[in-house]
Amino acid sequence: MTYTTTVTPLHWQGDALRILDQRALPADEVYLTCTSVEDVAQAIRTLAVRGAPLIGIVAAYGMVIAAQTAADVAQLSAYSDELAGTRPTAVNLFWALGRCRRAAALSSGRSLSDIRAALLVEALAIHTEDAASCQAMAAAGAPLLPEGARVLSHCNAGALATGGIGTSLGVMRAAHAAGRLAMVWVDETRPLLQGARLTAWELMRDGLPYRVICDNMAASLMASGQVDAVLVGADRITRSGDFANKIGTYGLAVLARAHDLPFYVAAPFSTIDLQLREGGEIPVEFRAEEEVCRYGGHVVTPAGATAWNPAFDVTPGHLVRAFITDRGVLLPPFSE
Amino acid sequence: MTYTTTVTPLHWQGDALRILDQRALPADEVYLTCTSVEDVAQAIRTLAVRGAPLIGIVAAYGMVIAAQTAADVAQLSAYSDELAGTRPTAVNLFWALGRCRRAAALSSGRSLSDIRAALLVEALAIHTEDAASCQAMAAAGAPLLPEGARVLSHCNAGALATGGIGTSLGVMRAAHAAGRLAMVWVDETRPLLQGARLTAWELMRDGLPYRVICDNMAASLMASGQVDAVLVGADRITRSGDFANKIGTYGLAVLARAHDLPFYVAAPFSTIDLQLREGGEIPVEFRAEEEVCRYGGHVVTPAGATAWNPAFDVTPGHLVRAFITDRGVLLPPFSE
Repeated sequence: MTYTTTVTPLHWQGDALRILDQRALPADEVYLTCTSVEDVAQAIRTLAVRGAPLIGIVAAYGMVIAAQTAADVAQLSAYSDELAGTRPTAVNLFWALGRCRRAAALSSGRSLSDIRAALLVEALAIHTEDAASCQAMAAAGAPLLPEGARVLSHCNAGALATGGIGTSLGVMRAAHAAGRLAMVWVDETRPLLQGARLTAWELMRDGLPYRVICDNMAASLMASGQVDAVLVGADRITRSGDFANKIGTYGLAVLARAHDLPFYVAAPFSTIDLQLREGGEIPVEFRAEEEVCRYGGHVVTPAGATAWNPAFDVTPGHLVRAFITDRGVLLPPFSE
Repeated sequence: MTYTTTVTPLHWQGDALRILDQRALPADEVYLTCTSVEDVAQAIRTLAVRGAPLIGIVAAYGMVIAAQTAADVAQLSAYSDELAGTRPTAVNLFWALGRCRRAAALSSGRSLSDIRAALLVEALAIHTEDAASCQAMAAAGAPLLPEGARVLSHCNAGALATGGIGTSLGVMRAAHAAGRLAMVWVDETRPLLQGARLTAWELMRDGLPYRVICDNMAASLMASGQVDAVLVGADRITRSGDFANKIGTYGLAVLARAHDLPFYVAAPFSTIDLQLREGGEIPVEFRAEEEVCRYGGHVVTPAGATAWNPAFDVTPGHLVRAFITDRGVLLPPFSE
């Protein structure tokens, strides 16, 4: 069975990348056209496009644009570095750029036009494989959820974060298709509200049952017996199973344990960084304090207020019941 | 020693109640003048004024206005019911109205003008006693905090929530005056952002060190070793020590326990509802779903999104290290 979505966060248009600007959702569906590496890097940096697997795909298409616009192989290499420098935490970015580097085979003395052709094949493969990987996670993960499941989600790990139906939301779609999903509780996910803005939009559009909560309501919801499982995505997973994901994930994992609820992570195998042994080694991105001081563009704190704004947190692997991957349901430690 | 604040959330002006409209903070300092019971009830219902002790004080002044404007004793009694119906969770409202009822001694056949005089004396007493109660809590609670304390706060339990320097923020003020407070971490407290808007404003104004975080960052902050204690207020405390407070409090208590951090509650003894044995008996207010879907007039969810919006949660007493009250530091079970 193949699961579907009506949501398309990007498409390749001959020589340009069209990206759905996620900053404008759900109010407006605006597409950005990226024709330079700077366009692509800016889209990643400013979160016009986000979600670990999707960032990898965007970077791969960015390398095609790099090959189209570079003066020489040295500049192509600098473009790759520029894309790698956009965001530090999600490993999919580095993984995709690594695949592109190998596909380009820069040392072989090929022409830029040949390199571009090879990079386009690679980008399309990364994109297509990610869509297939989402289907595999959905099939592997849905049986873990109980009949009539009420699942708590955090951030957006859906079609808007991938090249397919999503990682954790893909699993929920499969449970829904099987008639076994009663409710997706959507953590709004401050400061940038990826839950309230993106996950709610995606679920509403595709007809899944959902309800938005503020992040600080999750504990009370669990205590009231209205949650059967917590299911999130991941930006980077270490060999030990410690993983980085959107800020707030770690708290949910602690709360799930305290309420004896299963806590699942859905992510493609490429999210596992086999170079890293444990969570303390994952670089966590800190973003501008003003993201915390504003809500939807509206300043809420007093002028001059200071804030703390880590974009991610790290959850110890021992709090995870199981990792749902495109290679099946796995438990750490991870190895190739 | 007497601790001070520059923040005055209300004052009585001869025959009207002037209320600082907390909905407009921190952008604007606007005062509302309440001259009818409906003005007062509306101010409480719409959260122009909030905070358990302050609501009790406002209701008491509301009864003075009731006596000024009632046609007869029957209408005065109806006004009392109207004020009691504004919000269900904070017990201070009912406690203050109970004191007013006894002070009015309606059954004694006094004139409305005599009753008004008695009610004004009672309202001023409730107001003054609350200020003194804040001082007592501050003195009792500050020694519980360590040298260089970094304290996590939730919602606003400060001068803006009381007739004095605050309950839990009063304790922090006393620690600050003693040179022992290094940081107040301010949970923004969605959906209405009483932390980001009110607590940050109050702390900035009075020169205390603070930094705002999103509610979902608290767990990560604790794990990073940057929190020494969690200190919150309460809206209603049962005999067993289970207590209601702003949504998000329960999650913080679970997280504090998981990180082996002390969790303290500061509240006047009048917040203890000796009628109630345990938390399940506390009525929890649910508010409009749209509070979750927007902030400051800015809608963030897709049109038609549904949400869940309990204004409070209930924390089991066993998660509380100690209750800081105006009768000293106490542990449950509570009795007169």
